[in-house]
Amino acid sequence: MARFMDVHSGFIGVTPEQLAEAHEADLKIEGDEGVHFERAWLDPEAGKVFCLSTGPSKEAIMRIHERAGHPTTEVYEVTAEV
Amino acid sequence: MARFMDVHSGFIGVTPEQLAEAHEADLKIEGDEGVHFERAWLDPEAGKVFCLSTGPSKEAIMRIHERAGHPTTEVYEVTAEV
Repeated sequence: MARFMDVHSGFIGVTPEQLAEAHEADLKIEGDEGVHFERAWLDPEAGKVFCLSTGPSKEAIMRIHERAGHPTTEVYEVTAEV
Repeated sequence: MARFMDVHSGFIGVTPEQLAEAHEADLKIEGDEGVHFERAWLDPEAGKVFCLSTGPSKEAIMRIHERAGHPTTEVYEVTAEV
Protein backbone atom coordinates (compact mmCIF):
# COMPACT_ATOMS: atom_id res chain seq x y z
CA MET A 1 0.00 0.00 0.00
CA ALA A 2 1.39 3.36 -1.01
CA ARG A 3 0.73 6.83 0.33
CA PHE A 4 -0.33 9.81 -1.75
CA MET A 5 -0.78 13.56 -1.54
CA ASP A 6 -3.11 15.00 -4.13
CA VAL A 7 -3.86 18.60 -4.93
CA HIS A 8 -7.08 20.22 -6.14
CA SER A 9 -7.21 23.74 -7.58
CA GLY A 10 -10.13 26.09 -8.19
CA PHE A 11 -11.84 25.53 -4.83
CA ILE A 12 -12.02 29.26 -4.14
CA GLY A 13 -14.59 30.20 -1.49
CA VAL A 14 -15.30 26.61 -0.51
CA THR A 15 -16.60 26.35 3.06
CA PRO A 16 -15.47 23.93 5.78
CA GLU A 17 -18.88 22.24 5.43
CA GLN A 18 -18.38 21.73 1.70
CA LEU A 19 -14.92 20.29 2.37
CA ALA A 20 -16.45 17.86 4.86
CA GLU A 21 -19.14 16.88 2.34
CA ALA A 22 -16.55 16.29 -0.38
CA HIS A 23 -14.50 14.16 2.01
CA GLU A 24 -17.59 12.16 2.97
CA ALA A 25 -18.30 11.52 -0.70
CA ASP A 26 -14.80 10.02 -1.02
CA LEU A 27 -15.19 7.91 2.12
CA LYS A 28 -18.47 6.43 0.90
CA ILE A 29 -16.90 4.83 -2.16
CA GLU A 30 -13.18 4.58 -1.37
CA GLY A 31 -13.49 0.92 -0.38
CA ASP A 32 -14.29 0.02 -3.99
CA GLU A 33 -10.67 0.75 -4.90
CA GLY A 34 -8.92 -0.17 -1.65
CA VAL A 35 -8.21 3.52 -1.05
CA HIS A 36 -8.46 5.47 2.19
CA PHE A 37 -8.56 9.25 2.41
CA GLU A 38 -7.05 10.16 5.77
CA ARG A 39 -7.04 13.93 5.90
CA ALA A 40 -7.64 16.99 3.75
CA TRP A 41 -6.66 20.64 4.15
CA LEU A 42 -8.38 23.62 2.48
CA ASP A 43 -7.11 27.06 1.53
CA PRO A 44 -10.33 28.71 0.29
CA GLU A 45 -8.56 31.93 -0.66
CA ALA A 46 -6.12 30.23 -3.07
CA GLY A 47 -8.70 27.55 -3.89
CA LYS A 48 -6.37 24.69 -3.00
CA VAL A 49 -7.22 21.39 -1.31
CA PHE A 50 -4.55 18.86 -0.27
CA CYS A 51 -5.63 15.27 0.41
CA LEU A 52 -3.51 12.65 2.15
CA SER A 53 -4.44 9.07 1.31
CA THR A 54 -3.31 5.49 1.05
CA GLY A 55 -4.10 3.13 -1.78
CA PRO A 56 -2.78 0.74 -4.39
CA SER A 57 -2.04 3.32 -7.13
CA LYS A 58 -2.39 6.92 -8.27
CA GLU A 59 -5.05 5.79 -10.71
CA ALA A 60 -7.17 4.35 -7.89
CA ILE A 61 -7.00 7.69 -6.04
CA MET A 62 -7.96 9.53 -9.21
CA ARG A 63 -10.90 7.23 -9.92
CA ILE A 64 -12.41 7.71 -6.46
CA HIS A 65 -11.98 11.50 -6.58
CA GLU A 66 -13.51 11.60 -10.05
CA ARG A 67 -16.50 9.47 -9.07
CA ALA A 68 -16.98 11.59 -5.94
CA GLY A 69 -17.28 14.67 -8.13
CA HIS A 70 -13.89 16.39 -7.65
CA PRO A 71 -11.41 14.99 -10.17
CA THR A 72 -7.74 15.88 -10.15
CA THR A 73 -4.75 14.68 -12.11
CA GLU A 74 -2.25 16.11 -9.62
CA VAL A 75 -1.49 13.07 -7.46
CA TYR A 76 1.94 12.51 -5.87
CA GLU A 77 3.17 9.25 -4.41
CA VAL A 78 4.94 10.24 -1.19
CA THR A 79 7.51 7.58 -0.38
CA ALA A 80 9.10 9.29 2.62
CA GLU A 81 7.82 11.43 5.44
CA VAL A 82 8.92 12.98 8.69
CA MET B 1 -1.87 30.70 15.28
CA ALA B 2 -2.62 29.65 11.73
CA ARG B 3 -1.89 26.44 9.90
CA PHE B 4 -0.06 26.18 6.59
CA MET B 5 0.76 23.72 3.82
CA ASP B 6 3.76 24.65 1.74
CA VAL B 7 5.09 23.03 -1.40
CA HIS B 8 8.65 22.65 -2.65
CA SER B 9 9.51 21.70 -6.23
CA GLY B 10 12.73 20.41 -7.78
CA PHE B 11 13.55 17.90 -5.05
CA ILE B 12 14.02 15.09 -7.57
CA GLY B 13 15.99 12.15 -6.24
CA VAL B 14 16.06 13.44 -2.67
CA THR B 15 16.48 10.61 -0.16
CA PRO B 16 14.51 10.02 3.05
CA GLU B 17 17.70 10.92 4.96
CA GLN B 18 17.99 14.24 3.14
CA LEU B 19 14.32 14.96 3.88
CA ALA B 20 14.98 14.27 7.58
CA GLU B 21 18.04 16.55 7.53
CA ALA B 22 16.09 19.35 5.88
CA HIS B 23 13.31 18.97 8.45
CA GLU B 24 15.86 19.05 11.29
CA ALA B 25 17.30 22.27 9.86
CA ASP B 26 13.81 23.82 10.08
CA LEU B 27 13.25 22.54 13.61
CA LYS B 28 16.51 24.03 14.85
CA ILE B 29 15.51 27.60 14.04
CA GLU B 30 11.71 27.54 13.84
CA GLY B 31 11.36 28.91 17.37
CA ASP B 32 12.86 32.22 16.23
CA GLU B 33 9.64 32.91 14.31
CA GLY B 34 7.10 31.09 16.48
CA VAL B 35 6.70 28.48 13.74
CA HIS B 36 6.43 24.71 14.07
CA PHE B 37 6.91 22.27 11.22
CA GLU B 38 4.80 19.24 12.07
CA ARG B 39 5.17 16.88 9.14
CA ALA B 40 6.60 16.68 5.63
CA TRP B 41 5.98 14.29 2.75
CA LEU B 42 8.34 13.65 -0.17
CA ASP B 43 7.73 12.47 -3.73
CA PRO B 44 11.32 12.10 -5.00
CA GLU B 45 10.17 11.14 -8.50
CA ALA B 46 8.18 14.33 -9.06
CA GLY B 47 10.54 16.29 -6.81
CA LYS B 48 7.77 17.58 -4.55
CA VAL B 49 7.82 18.11 -0.80
CA PHE B 50 4.73 19.10 1.18
CA CYS B 51 5.20 20.59 4.66
CA LEU B 52 2.46 21.03 7.26
CA SER B 53 3.14 23.71 9.83
CA THR B 54 1.70 26.20 12.27
CA GLY B 55 2.84 29.76 12.72
CA PRO B 56 1.89 33.43 12.84
CA SER B 57 2.08 34.13 9.07
CA LYS B 58 3.08 32.84 5.64
CA GLU B 59 6.07 35.14 5.76
CA ALA B 60 7.33 33.53 8.98
CA ILE B 61 7.14 30.09 7.34
CA MET B 62 8.98 31.39 4.29
CA ARG B 63 11.73 33.00 6.38
CA ILE B 64 12.46 29.78 8.29
CA HIS B 65 12.50 27.66 5.13
CA GLU B 66 14.78 30.18 3.43
CA ARG B 67 17.23 30.34 6.35
CA ALA B 68 17.21 26.52 6.54
CA GLY B 69 18.34 26.39 2.91
CA HIS B 70 15.15 25.38 1.08
CA PRO B 71 13.17 28.49 0.21
CA THR B 72 9.70 28.36 -1.32
CA THR B 73 7.11 30.96 -2.15
CA GLU B 74 4.30 28.42 -2.43
CA VAL B 75 2.72 28.62 1.02
CA TYR B 76 -1.01 28.09 1.61
CA GLU B 77 -2.91 29.03 4.73
CA VAL B 78 -5.23 26.09 5.36
CA THR B 79 -8.20 27.32 7.36
CA ALA B 80 -10.23 24.10 7.35
CA GLU B 81 -9.38 20.43 7.54
CA VAL B 82 -11.00 17.06 7.89
